[in-house]
Amino acid sequence: MKIGIIGLGLMGGSLGLALKHFSKEYYILGYDHNQSHQKEALSLGLVDEISDDFKKIKTCDIIILTIPVDAIITIMPQLEGVSKDCTIIDFGSSKEKISNSIPSSIRKNFVTAHPMTGTEKFGPSAALNDLYNNKTMVVCDQAKSGEIQNSIATKIFNDIGSKIVYMNAKEHDRHAAFISHMPHAVSYAIANSVMKQEDADAIVTLAGGGFKSMSRIAQSSPNMWEDIFRQNKANLLESIITFNEEMLLCQKLIEEESWSELHAWMKKANKLHEIL
Amino acid sequence: MKIGIIGLGLMGGSLGLALKHFSKEYYILGYDHNQSHQKEALSLGLVDEISDDFKKIKTCDIIILTIPVDAIITIMPQLEGVSKDCTIIDFGSSKEKISNSIPSSIRKNFVTAHPMTGTEKFGPSAALNDLYNNKTMVVCDQAKSGEIQNSIATKIFNDIGSKIVYMNAKEHDRHAAFISHMPHAVSYAIANSVMKQEDADAIVTLAGGGFKSMSRIAQSSPNMWEDIFRQNKANLLESIITFNEEMLLCQKLIEEESWSELHAWMKKANKLHEIL
Repeated sequence: MKIGIIGLGLMGGSLGLALKHFSKEYYILGYDHNQSHQKEALSLGLVDEISDDFKKIKTCDIIILTIPVDAIITIMPQLEGVSKDCTIIDFGSSKEKISNSIPSSIRKNFVTAHPMTGTEKFGPSAALNDLYNNKTMVVCDQAKSGEIQNSIATKIFNDIGSKIVYMNAKEHDRHAAFISHMPHAVSYAIANSVMKQEDADAIVTLAGGGFKSMSRIAQSSPNMWEDIFRQNKANLLESIITFNEEMLLCQKLIEEESWSELHAWMKKANKLHEIL
Repeated sequence: MKIGIIGLGLMGGSLGLALKHFSKEYYILGYDHNQSHQKEALSLGLVDEISDDFKKIKTCDIIILTIPVDAIITIMPQLEGVSKDCTIIDFGSSKEKISNSIPSSIRKNFVTAHPMTGTEKFGPSAALNDLYNNKTMVVCDQAKSGEIQNSIATKIFNDIGSKIVYMNAKEHDRHAAFISHMPHAVSYAIANSVMKQEDADAIVTLAGGGFKSMSRIAQSSPNMWEDIFRQNKANLLESIITFNEEMLLCQKLIEEESWSELHAWMKKANKLHEIL
């Protein structure tokens, strides 16, 4: 089967690697408007071939969109006219706007998914063959996709070792805000809190494992995250407001020296790991 | 040389393991008021012997205090009367109150240090022989410690592979607030933000690497952290207020849809990793 991967960064590159690693039945065409990414993807063996010909990509059995969420919406009209058996899968981190933007002529072709995995790194050199292995793949609004498309997407997700979870796009976006989008905002805020100190360099020499964990995803690409934040604005705001209330409560408990309440607040947080 | 380790949790247990792993010249006496910790420490080989006799601990060449920061201050008067060559080292995460509380009769005996390492786990079973290896050890108010004590502490820190950094306790506490104490408060707040949602279980099924990083230290012990937050109240509040301002700015930029400013804010955060 011919797979066209549009966008050869961390997600697309890792998908190419994983498909080649776990199965031999796919021939992978890579498409990326960045020429150095094209060369890198080919030399790293993430794809079998690079094509600049979008028409050729449109003839693939499967087309995967691993580009920023705004670009997914922009590219959709160009995908109209694919064969009715073609499966198009997008890996966007926000789903409702994407799901609602798919042209009706190719709605059945589309499977809209979100792999709950990634790293703070980006570009083809960041690709990992086990990025999707044992990770959750959220598939949204499944009933709107065609039968063939759902079964092909399931096969691919199984081939790369993902665990499929189904939910509607609206529910996904609210959950993703709390579990991924808000924590990214928090990590950026931690990094900026330290960076604005006069003695940031001296402070950073004391960084241990805790700070490294908390600031790791502050390395993530603003190009990618600006789009996600915009597309998931309402849910993101709700999750940020909830988080800010928790931080203001923490601040108040410390200011008032309500140590036993603060202790109880920390103890409650410990319980997360019983369900994580 | 005889070393008495008071407190056989993650820090004390790992120190015992590291000393036995990297050097053969230490005989380690463990002291802990928790009887199951005593047994566990002995059976895991973290110490050579357990003693309930505080007088015997006081005859050790070196005494290490790996107990919560309030307990370090409480135990100090009981250490008066040690030999003038005895070296007492505490591993407290806040340093100014500790440094100022040391009785003058044993001030030269004391080396007050903070290893910038740890995990979210606790108790003897959490001990790791490489917890200190290649990690920063902050030594505070070094000039107040005796010459022998400074050289013995340096030898031990070298033996376990730590990289020593010197600073005064006041400076340490401000830096530690930004690099460690505030990030712990933030991680507790992230966990509580999710836990208070009606559908917390469903949200958590989507947890990927980002959320796991950001919530890991929310498992930390409230017993330990309540004391640290109390001892470092002023610096912690400054760092939390700074962080809260960043989060409120982030919230405002999203509410106002100031996407290019938000982009610049994220890009600034990326720069942290040039100095980390």
